[in-house]
Amino acid sequence: MRVLLVGAGGVGTAITRIAARRSFFDHMVVTDYDLSRAEAAVAALGGEETRFTALRIDASDRAAVTALLTEQRCDILVNATDPRFVMPLFEAALAAGADYLDMAMSLSSPHPERPYEQCGVKLGDRQFERAAAWEEAGRLALVGVGVEPGLSDVFARYAADELFDEIEEIGVRDGANLTVEGYDFAPSFSIWTTIEECLNPPVVWERDRGWFTTAPFSEPEVFDFPEGIGPVACVNVEHEEVLLIPRWVESRRVTFKYGLGDEFIETLKTLHSLGLDRTDKVTVPGGEVSPRDVVAACLPDPASLGALMRGKTCAGTRVTGTKDGAPRDVYLYHVVDNQWSMREYGTQAVVWQTAINPVIALELVASGVWSGAGVLGAEALAPRPFLDLLVAYGSPWGLREQ
Amino acid sequence: MRVLLVGAGGVGTAITRIAARRSFFDHMVVTDYDLSRAEAAVAALGGEETRFTALRIDASDRAAVTALLTEQRCDILVNATDPRFVMPLFEAALAAGADYLDMAMSLSSPHPERPYEQCGVKLGDRQFERAAAWEEAGRLALVGVGVEPGLSDVFARYAADELFDEIEEIGVRDGANLTVEGYDFAPSFSIWTTIEECLNPPVVWERDRGWFTTAPFSEPEVFDFPEGIGPVACVNVEHEEVLLIPRWVESRRVTFKYGLGDEFIETLKTLHSLGLDRTDKVTVPGGEVSPRDVVAACLPDPASLGALMRGKTCAGTRVTGTKDGAPRDVYLYHVVDNQWSMREYGTQAVVWQTAINPVIALELVASGVWSGAGVLGAEALAPRPFLDLLVAYGSPWGLREQ
Repeated sequence: MRVLLVGAGGVGTAITRIAARRSFFDHMVVTDYDLSRAEAAVAALGGEETRFTALRIDASDRAAVTALLTEQRCDILVNATDPRFVMPLFEAALAAGADYLDMAMSLSSPHPERPYEQCGVKLGDRQFERAAAWEEAGRLALVGVGVEPGLSDVFARYAADELFDEIEEIGVRDGANLTVEGYDFAPSFSIWTTIEECLNPPVVWERDRGWFTTAPFSEPEVFDFPEGIGPVACVNVEHEEVLLIPRWVESRRVTFKYGLGDEFIETLKTLHSLGLDRTDKVTVPGGEVSPRDVVAACLPDPASLGALMRGKTCAGTRVTGTKDGAPRDVYLYHVVDNQWSMREYGTQAVVWQTAINPVIALELVASGVWSGAGVLGAEALAPRPFLDLLVAYGSPWGLREQ
Repeated sequence: MRVLLVGAGGVGTAITRIAARRSFFDHMVVTDYDLSRAEAAVAALGGEETRFTALRIDASDRAAVTALLTEQRCDILVNATDPRFVMPLFEAALAAGADYLDMAMSLSSPHPERPYEQCGVKLGDRQFERAAAWEEAGRLALVGVGVEPGLSDVFARYAADELFDEIEEIGVRDGANLTVEGYDFAPSFSIWTTIEECLNPPVVWERDRGWFTTAPFSEPEVFDFPEGIGPVACVNVEHEEVLLIPRWVESRRVTFKYGLGDEFIETLKTLHSLGLDRTDKVTVPGGEVSPRDVVAACLPDPASLGALMRGKTCAGTRVTGTKDGAPRDVYLYHVVDNQWSMREYGTQAVVWQTAINPVIALELVASGVWSGAGVLGAEALAPRPFLDLLVAYGSPWGLREQ
């Protein structure tokens, strides 16, 4: 297998480090808009440079990406860029006759009149509209195969296949107890993206209603995360799992709640009430600028904080329903300790946890265990081999009966 | 009396409207950096234009201001600009042999090593350093004669003269129940200045310690404001009263607490923890900008909100101590209802309440009731004639025995 990796930021770089320890692929072409980032990722691999090449690419240039896939004889494109580049990369792979894998799906836009009740364009809609073309071409587009979406969706399918007869609710729950030494407030993930996720109308799926939206920060709950993380305030957030899981797994309700914690929720609400989440420009002495860019510029770059971070991050899926006539309530989860990921891979926990999953998916595709044609989420494919590889990679998952 | 008014913003314009109904002065020259603002203020006075002239002035150009004072034969300069222009205007008046009046004093700078324990340069220090020159010239600089500082200081002196034998604490307390229709968050006063006031180290005076500072938002208390405003969360804020009152009024302790309310306090803390209160520049797409300017640009202009505001604002001074051997606790206060000030003067309550006090002070100087030489606060002069004029102007004050 020859892989074209597009994007050598935090997640792309972590993908190279995790993949370098596995033998399933022949070559990985590591690309970025900024060639020096791709070169730095490859150089950091030490003796493994022979299976990796660094090249420059503009992810928004569909024709150039198609040409590179062909020229480099790549079997699959792995998209590790930000979601604005999903569509050109997705189309470039199809045009080149390659498979495709991403960790976030094409962007949503809110309903023009009733944003907090009805969906407008949903996450992934633009990709699913093209499913027939992928099926006809006999090529596989694996969408949303990071940790959440991705591993969370594998957990959902595993629960349906092996743990439940009937499922009431599938609720993805993400939480952490990460702190950053020396900072009062330092998000471990891009604040720009976090604002986008958290202030977009959250989406919920119910069997009787289909997909619908709510106001931001709806249905607050305190979820008790495992392995010492403890209780964290969670709220509904727009996320791909809610759009993916109901397509392949039967249940009555699907939600995603993000463990932002009370302080972070209040901070986001304040930014919103002050209009500082806006992306349109305001005029001030010195220029015309987007307030959200200014917020991001005032905070430390999360990619640079790994060494100062302490704590663990947890991704998982809570499933309630019945098994053999009795009620059941389980939380399937995966925890990464930042000190472990920094020591083992030089990568902070949130980024590392995202990156391991596409590498496992690639290995399953390379070995033929995962195969198919069309636009598929991780829950469309066999969960057990995926979960077994997670253990084999040295990062086991857990199951808690509630 | 001929008056040079510098600054035709909210407060300057309100000064012209209040003064226009009084006969104590012969002429007021209304000036602004933006001539159209001065002209608009004068044009709005209707039949009273004969006593008012509009001219352009640059408040930072000391020589030009001195020349204008001489050319226009003005007896007194009234500074209604922002505090950055205190020093050039104060020096210009002295150089021209005119009297001077302002509503905010020369700016502070924090102690370089122990900002939350010790004072650095205090509010008004640069003006008091020049007191001898004013005394020698036989001219009067009345400093901090708005509502707070200003009326609050008159209340303090009145309490010392007529209500107490010994004073324990003089605590200025400012609160409001103003809301702005259609806005979740819309400060009734400049957010730039509010951030400056609230995030600077608050200053406290005690007889045994002199002036010292604390961390922002210290000594929170809930103060019950009169006339239906009710309880509001108040915290220590850096303000001129604490620097002025101990110079002329005996007590054991002087504080200033601002009734920001819990929501506003949390918002300011959030802006600070995100670094959005910073005035140094950050680089973002579109320019190099000061984050605090971006915060201000995202919020509505408070000067434009008068017609949408509802509620009352209260300024006052709480005094505790003893009278005739018995403990006493009084709150001397002044309340303005926004709907009243909009209807009567077309001016929002907070601005109007600031503007009435310098007009009363001018009238007392014109009539010779207030006189002196040097740099004096309102508490250096007789309080009763000031309070009587407040009633005569149609805006009575109140006294609550606690």
